[in-house]
Amino acid sequence: MQHKSEILKNNPLGDRHIRDVIVYLPPDYDENKSYPSDYVLTGFTGRGRMLLNDSAFTPNFAERMDKLISTGKIKPMIAVLPDCFTHYGGSQYINSSATGDYEDYLINEIVPFVDENFRTIKDKSARAVMGKSSGGYGALIMAMRHSDVFGLACSTSGDCYFNYCYLPDFPKAFRAVKGYPKKLVEKFWNEDAKKAKDDFAALNIIGMSACYSPNTESELGFDLPFDLETGEIISNVLARWMRHDPVFIAEKYAENLKSLKLLYIDAGTKDEFALDLGARILSGKLNELKIPHIYEEFDDGHFNIGYRQNRSLELISENIEYR
Amino acid sequence: MQHKSEILKNNPLGDRHIRDVIVYLPPDYDENKSYPSDYVLTGFTGRGRMLLNDSAFTPNFAERMDKLISTGKIKPMIAVLPDCFTHYGGSQYINSSATGDYEDYLINEIVPFVDENFRTIKDKSARAVMGKSSGGYGALIMAMRHSDVFGLACSTSGDCYFNYCYLPDFPKAFRAVKGYPKKLVEKFWNEDAKKAKDDFAALNIIGMSACYSPNTESELGFDLPFDLETGEIISNVLARWMRHDPVFIAEKYAENLKSLKLLYIDAGTKDEFALDLGARILSGKLNELKIPHIYEEFDDGHFNIGYRQNRSLELISENIEYR
Amino acid sequence: MQHKSEILKNNPLGDRHIRDVIVYLPPDYDENKSYPSDYVLTGFTGRGRMLLNDSAFTPNFAERMDKLISTGKIKPMIAVLPDCFTHYGGSQYINSSATGDYEDYLINEIVPFVDENFRTIKDKSARAVMGKSSGGYGALIMAMRHSDVFGLACSTSGDCYFNYCYLPDFPKAFRAVKGYPKKLVEKFWNEDAKKAKDDFAALNIIGMSACYSPNTESELGFDLPFDLETGEIISNVLARWMRHDPVFIAEKYAENLKSLKLLYIDAGTKDEFALDLGARILSGKLNELKIPHIYEEFDDGHFNIGYRQNRSLELISENIEYR
Amino acid sequence: MQHKSEILKNNPLGDRHIRDVIVYLPPDYDENKSYPSDYVLTGFTGRGRMLLNDSAFTPNFAERMDKLISTGKIKPMIAVLPDCFTHYGGSQYINSSATGDYEDYLINEIVPFVDENFRTIKDKSARAVMGKSSGGYGALIMAMRHSDVFGLACSTSGDCYFNYCYLPDFPKAFRAVKGYPKKLVEKFWNEDAKKAKDDFAALNIIGMSACYSPNTESELGFDLPFDLETGEIISNVLARWMRHDPVFIAEKYAENLKSLKLLYIDAGTKDEFALDLGARILSGKLNELKIPHIYEEFDDGHFNIGYRQNRSLELISENIEYR
Repeated sequence: MQHKSEILKNNPLGDRHIRDVIVYLPPDYDENKSYPSDYVLTGFTGRGRMLLNDSAFTPNFAERMDKLISTGKIKPMIAVLPDCFTHYGGSQYINSSATGDYEDYLINEIVPFVDENFRTIKDKSARAVMGKSSGGYGALIMAMRHSDVFGLACSTSGDCYFNYCYLPDFPKAFRAVKGYPKKLVEKFWNEDAKKAKDDFAALNIIGMSACYSPNTESELGFDLPFDLETGEIISNVLARWMRHDPVFIAEKYAENLKSLKLLYIDAGTKDEFALDLGARILSGKLNELKIPHIYEEFDDGHFNIGYRQNRSLELISENIEYR
Repeated sequence: MQHKSEILKNNPLGDRHIRDVIVYLPPDYDENKSYPSDYVLTGFTGRGRMLLNDSAFTPNFAERMDKLISTGKIKPMIAVLPDCFTHYGGSQYINSSATGDYEDYLINEIVPFVDENFRTIKDKSARAVMGKSSGGYGALIMAMRHSDVFGLACSTSGDCYFNYCYLPDFPKAFRAVKGYPKKLVEKFWNEDAKKAKDDFAALNIIGMSACYSPNTESELGFDLPFDLETGEIISNVLARWMRHDPVFIAEKYAENLKSLKLLYIDAGTKDEFALDLGARILSGKLNELKIPHIYEEFDDGHFNIGYRQNRSLELISENIEYR
Repeated sequence: MQHKSEILKNNPLGDRHIRDVIVYLPPDYDENKSYPSDYVLTGFTGRGRMLLNDSAFTPNFAERMDKLISTGKIKPMIAVLPDCFTHYGGSQYINSSATGDYEDYLINEIVPFVDENFRTIKDKSARAVMGKSSGGYGALIMAMRHSDVFGLACSTSGDCYFNYCYLPDFPKAFRAVKGYPKKLVEKFWNEDAKKAKDDFAALNIIGMSACYSPNTESELGFDLPFDLETGEIISNVLARWMRHDPVFIAEKYAENLKSLKLLYIDAGTKDEFALDLGARILSGKLNELKIPHIYEEFDDGHFNIGYRQNRSLELISENIEYR
Repeated sequence: MQHKSEILKNNPLGDRHIRDVIVYLPPDYDENKSYPSDYVLTGFTGRGRMLLNDSAFTPNFAERMDKLISTGKIKPMIAVLPDCFTHYGGSQYINSSATGDYEDYLINEIVPFVDENFRTIKDKSARAVMGKSSGGYGALIMAMRHSDVFGLACSTSGDCYFNYCYLPDFPKAFRAVKGYPKKLVEKFWNEDAKKAKDDFAALNIIGMSACYSPNTESELGFDLPFDLETGEIISNVLARWMRHDPVFIAEKYAENLKSLKLLYIDAGTKDEFALDLGARILSGKLNELKIPHIYEEFDDGHFNIGYRQNRSLELISENIEYR
């Protein structure tokens, strides 16, 4: 279905404000019944539609849902696959003057839009959010700031503890950017241009800068966390990033997090961005704050772990409200 | 569109015989006109539908076509994206007692089916075939054996010179298979099972064995090119493979190849399977045989080279018959 | 020559206090003349003797000196290759309650010992120090704290800007250490034990901890910069490390650095530990402090760059005092 | 000790004919006793002296021997570390018009020279040969062709089954050579020239060509196994290589191999050159030929496996003749 956003209209990057909102309906969807809903957030450089991509051997998200429901592993649910992609590769599902107000878009436009058009149970206890990588980050943010909307949240390999998941990429980004961040981004939009390995690290750091350290007064629209001439970390920019790190803001939102019916965190012990450590450290903070949650590790890396959705979906199915 | 195959019915692997045939129609497709058609073959582990997968930054095949046509870089064409995927990952677009008769399927069922249902120009001079990797191999096979059907063929990084593109993977495959080829294949169909790097090499060699050295009398249905206990090459099996190597069969089909309106071969100079050498060696043979063709190299590897489709499509557009 | 150290006697790790001091004498060494001397410090896990290792194609340090002197590229010099290796892999050439007082050992024992036994010019203007990696770090430390002893210093890819050269290895070290730092070290002393890739990162971080954050009250003898249970950075330990980072202590020793006859810093633009950024950032600080120095980059990584010694040796030869 | 070779005099590459012959003597070497002797052959790009290189954590060859003897794990032996290095990186310990007659050098000059100058037991039953990689290959060649000189042979990861250990490197070598093999070799002798990863594969293939397919009539002095323009394998050159492959010549020397007191073959199951498969295939052939031998695998790769010397040395000690 197409949705015309007022919030994304005139977004600073000129990204489209009319976007597909992909909604998965369970096999025997019945207009006379009501269903819980699950919002599935994709990682950086992703958007909802990609979850339906065809792939050899492994099911896409819709096929996965069909199978889990038909085998009774989960109960029927509606799933929503929003599109929060931007010119810089993503939005982290938060508001930023450099990218657009994607947090508002999701909460104030997409959720109501889905509730209006589909037979959802319109209550936080029947509304979940889950995601992987930046999508896991988004799920954590929703859990922290919008526990009145989402009563359950699952983060798989979600961005956490920025000192480990982003900082080690600063030198790579510095080298790839070579002083010109916009040029690096354009490279990605030029299909013929060859992307080197470090270019992905650079795009990631640029994208995160646009989300975490926007600056309407800078030429770029945001501040990079390192000096473009020497590569030295700019500590006040990094400090602004830290105000978005789940590890450091969990305390602020402790009451919200405590109100959740489910908070699930997992990550692979070979995660290339050390997000298993991020998850461990976050879990430690949650324990200190006496916030109930489930923390699990699995023996894999950051990529090709779609099968982990099963675990989140099963936990959501167990804990979400049905009528 | 769905097509019900008689040829694939009862195929040895129990793969579906009712399959999607994805047909791309140009923007202003007019039922009163006729269009040339282009068959696009995917690589190993691929099928037509994947060409429509959504991807950040880069267009999918339909978006690419729309753009090339709308900017006047190519003339309007119908494109056909067939599905020749099998339980072993692919069919190489040839007949095999171990996988099914995919060459017949394509030539005797899909081409007529498309010609019946769409406004194609029903002539070899207006019918092209192109593909990448195993799809490039398929295009070469079509060019060699079915030049009466396809008058133009483009192979990008097509499987060529098996001594370089497959043989170096035998040791990896031997290690990964550990004596049990079927078990290795099942691993790929079990989403939770972790695939190690060498497992992909093993799947590839198993898939190629099913295509190149089928054996109805062996328990597996095909012969592997190496001994399962020591890893030693079994020379008569390898010899059977060689009878499928474009480099060695080009001579046999020289007249057919000479009859083509276009034969285009390209490969990246960093191809991970040394297919640039394969293309070079093939081009050398074609020169010896005085078979007209265009051979080009590009500065890239084997993966993420969708942008190379533009070059094939432009050459096809220039050389294919329009009315 | 063997030297019996009083300072290393009873060092906390039980490392030998009688050590070889390898002294290179120029081809026509003449007992009646005096020569400038150059101290060459090796990287982590190295010791002087290794500079004489035989290698295919490339000269060892003595062969390099012979050739540079015989071709007139440098003037005759004495070179000293000290051994500051420890059970943890190195000493960073500084004093530490966890490893031993290697800074004192070098300054108070080795320099006088060499001056006594060889025909050196006994003046800072005729005494240089150079090194690579941890040896480059050592050279910087000598330049900062012992400019009365060494009047010239060259650091190639010296440890600098710990946020980039060490911090990214914390997650790898955390995973490899698995809670038991001593066990990890013992693995290195057990030849049969297989070392995984991350084990080297772990040894490095352990070694640096022993040098930068010794703690006589901890069981280990030093503090690791991360929590052994969650991997979280322990900020006060990291702060103690920073007090050893050349980038942050340059200011303190600015007067000493200004007194040098030569301060040379280089690093490769593909350095695996981002030490080119470290060098760039250090050079920026030195410029701010108006400390004269030469800063150069070269197109290579961190390893197999012995040929860079030529550049340091030539600069030393040009600037060191001869009589 | 220095030895002046008549055989290497005027060798085609202008390599030195006066070379060090490094002889290890056991701790309590007694001129009145006689000792068995063990010849230790190094891998490609190695020479005897390198076995004495200093290394952190691991003993060099002499330290290893001292320790094994002093702990009673092996009996006292003399060890000989010859130098068969060439301008192309090695000699494979065989005669070649392109490199020199290193097989003769070893058998006709070095063995007699050692027997003359040291208290060896001058009998094949008291003379062993061992080595790793190309040194393992050398040990196998000595075992096959000179079982009258060496009664015991141990090959660790010795070059075997060229289809797997060399052929996969042909494409890399083709790309690196770029039509000019000599230029590639010169790159290695120019310390400042950066060596890319494929350059090592190229040097290896060039070195092997000089050993296996010398040709006094070609400009290079040898034939490469692939076409310099297309990369295609030149089958008659490859056939000449095969006449040096232990797997294919074992039969010819079966009687010699049967006469050995010890024939030991091992390799790591992660060997980067698939030499574990080479060893497995060779062991299979030896079994068919009823040649007694010990075959073992270990869990490691091709590099940094000096600790495997212990196993060879212990087997030699058990089986060699003492008086």
